Amino acid sequence: MDLSRESIQETMQRFKNATLTLIKWLLCASFSGITIGFIGSIFNLLLGKVTNIRIANPNLLFLLPIGGLVIIFLYRIVGEGGNKGTNLVITAIQSSEEVPAKVAPLIIISTLITHLFGGSAGREGAALQVGASLGNFLGKAFKFDDKDRRIMIMCGMSACFSALFGTPIAAAIFSMEVISVGIMYYAALVPCVVAALIAQKIASLFKIAGTAFTVDEFVSFNALNGTKFVILAICFALASILLCLCLHGANKLYSKYIPNQYIRVFVAGLLVIALRYIFNTTSFLGAGADVIANSFVDSAAWYVFLLKILFTAVTLGGGFKGGEIVPTLFVGATLGSFLAPIFGLPVALCAACGMVSVFCGVTNCPITSLILAIEMFGAGSMKYCILCIALSYLLSGYYSLYSTQKIMYSKYKTEFVNKNTH
Amino acid sequence: MDLSRESIQETMQRFKNATLTLIKWLLCASFSGITIGFIGSIFNLLLGKVTNIRIANPNLLFLLPIGGLVIIFLYRIVGEGGNKGTNLVITAIQSSEEVPAKVAPLIIISTLITHLFGGSAGREGAALQVGASLGNFLGKAFKFDDKDRRIMIMCGMSACFSALFGTPIAAAIFSMEVISVGIMYYAALVPCVVAALIAQKIASLFKIAGTAFTVDEFVSFNALNGTKFVILAICFALASILLCLCLHGANKLYSKYIPNQYIRVFVAGLLVIALRYIFNTTSFLGAGADVIANSFVDSAAWYVFLLKILFTAVTLGGGFKGGEIVPTLFVGATLGSFLAPIFGLPVALCAACGMVSVFCGVTNCPITSLILAIEMFGAGSMKYCILCIALSYLLSGYYSLYSTQKIMYSKYKTEFVNKNTH
Repeated sequence: MDLSRESIQETMQRFKNATLTLIKWLLCASFSGITIGFIGSIFNLLLGKVTNIRIANPNLLFLLPIGGLVIIFLYRIVGEGGNKGTNLVITAIQSSEEVPAKVAPLIIISTLITHLFGGSAGREGAALQVGASLGNFLGKAFKFDDKDRRIMIMCGMSACFSALFGTPIAAAIFSMEVISVGIMYYAALVPCVVAALIAQKIASLFKIAGTAFTVDEFVSFNALNGTKFVILAICFALASILLCLCLHGANKLYSKYIPNQYIRVFVAGLLVIALRYIFNTTSFLGAGADVIANSFVDSAAWYVFLLKILFTAVTLGGGFKGGEIVPTLFVGATLGSFLAPIFGLPVALCAACGMVSVFCGVTNCPITSLILAIEMFGAGSMKYCILCIALSYLLSGYYSLYSTQKIMYSKYKTEFVNKNTH
Repeated sequence: MDLSRESIQETMQRFKNATLTLIKWLLCASFSGITIGFIGSIFNLLLGKVTNIRIANPNLLFLLPIGGLVIIFLYRIVGEGGNKGTNLVITAIQSSEEVPAKVAPLIIISTLITHLFGGSAGREGAALQVGASLGNFLGKAFKFDDKDRRIMIMCGMSACFSALFGTPIAAAIFSMEVISVGIMYYAALVPCVVAALIAQKIASLFKIAGTAFTVDEFVSFNALNGTKFVILAICFALASILLCLCLHGANKLYSKYIPNQYIRVFVAGLLVIALRYIFNTTSFLGAGADVIANSFVDSAAWYVFLLKILFTAVTLGGGFKGGEIVPTLFVGATLGSFLAPIFGLPVALCAACGMVSVFCGVTNCPITSLILAIEMFGAGSMKYCILCIALSYLLSGYYSLYSTQKIMYSKYKTEFVNKNTH
């Protein structure tokens, strides 16, 4: 053992630095866990309320185009007409760009409007943006340098995601994993974990339960069933690619043919109303939590996941706000649920695998997907989920929900590539 | 949506490449999962047998110095006198160096000798080396290029770790995470997951059960208990540093004062015998699975973890073979178990947190530590474990069991550092 005086001094010095870093981050992460967890919890409760109002008053859907106009107006009036949403959050962690504080109230109000009037959208995109902008704000308030401010942004994202979704560990890891594929921003590990755990605690004080589904029927893990899951995973990867293509495609088509943001969002609102009556269903309005829950019990029809992609692309592409992740989970769960009886597998297990595999396919975050599976379905489904997640990761290529996400290390070879996603 | 002919052709081409990559890796991973899983299972059974023989014949301990001579003789006769063990495995994945096939039988026989005669050592070091050398062999047999051969090495490590420890997902992720801290070698995700799952299946055919402990008493997650876990985690981080210092230190001391490998290992064997009689206990000989299991039921004494560090440093530093990971788990579990009543926390929960936190502190692999916790203790302990793991990761600094492991991204700032561990 090297017991020279210098060595001991160096070790002591390093331990002192680590302890100071620890205290700083414990305090900052606790503070942002409490504040952002509180704001996230209120947002979560409001989302539940507006969804109940929408279901009780189906005719609110007719106001969706007007709601869209209000969203665009709000973004423009505060000078955020060109806001890039979650993409900006990712850029802010990769570089020294900032997420302005005004984004938080903007995205909260816009998401509530989208959900109140029946747009097909999620809430995690909003969670990430709210968390990032508040984290950025706190980082500046604490006079942190650029690198520590980035950690505060990740910490805020984790806190808000955790409060809204009730899966604290997946929330903590997602912020570290999503920015640059192949790199884990472990410098943010303690802040993200602490903030996410505290935020979930705050949410539980509001009696907000975590997202969870019952998966209790399993099959033995043999060659035949293994092959079935491989084929399922290929389907999930294809669905992930389709989802990315449709969301990005809708965006481009709208921008190309309707340059004016107001007209665009108004048309999008009208299209959602039209789709609702063409297909004569309200299942694809809002987040669709009931449809997701049901897909774990009864096998979904073949077209359900396709219609969700259509409704979501039309809604979000047109300028409504919310997020792509809950629709992603919806698509995966209903596709898995539809495929289950074809392969003679339990419905809940396939819905579970589909949910996290499509999530992995569009976010390129296999570890978050696995932890999400464990937090939502329990440890029993791990083996099946990780197999599907791994394959979906490989086969979904360099597609991504987030155009600013970078693929730093190749999915196919052990090499540094630093590629943009598409 | 970009539906131009080039775009569709490019997508098809990429999907074709991904599918071919998939088929290649599914076949190779299945093959290595089956063969390496089989070899790992036999090794596991033999380890159990030699441990039973040792316990039934306590006097075998007196042959430990002779066993040591045999180990050194075997390594020298095949020209591996300077073999770097697990460090070589890590180097082989970072660079184009190779792990020779002869390492597999060598490390298997040496580990069995160490365990038969009562050296304090683990088995995972052996698992990683066996897996890596067989993976390297298969990679060359399949005429893979350097990068694909590295994936085969990781795949072999995962398979053998999985067969020996029964925690397939932690085994799969460990190979990808341990090489370069901050980078995830996701290119190996599918091969590692498939090989690990198959290897565990093979092990289960041999009626080998996974390593598991019952953790069923939890405490509520509030500010007071949170603070207690923070303090516990600081202790675990300090124990990690102490363990690394002692293992590396013993190595250096032995090399400095006893340059001859034969004399060194002989002296090490004598020292283990002496320690066994000085402390009048056989608890620290072999892997110590019974002591680990007991630490989840009854609180361990304060000196147990220190003695395990001493016995292991004396054994491994002197040239005996096996691995450092089971001793690491032993140290963590008994330290947690000792601290539990002091903090008024459940013994099993603290032992569990200690086990994975010290593992994280010495390997710098937080995700593997978390998955290990879930696979060994179930999902209920996740929140407590991740908090301790994260803190232990931060506070253990750049110490590591493996001197060839690199810290690619700082633990403290979001920046690329590419540092050696110490």
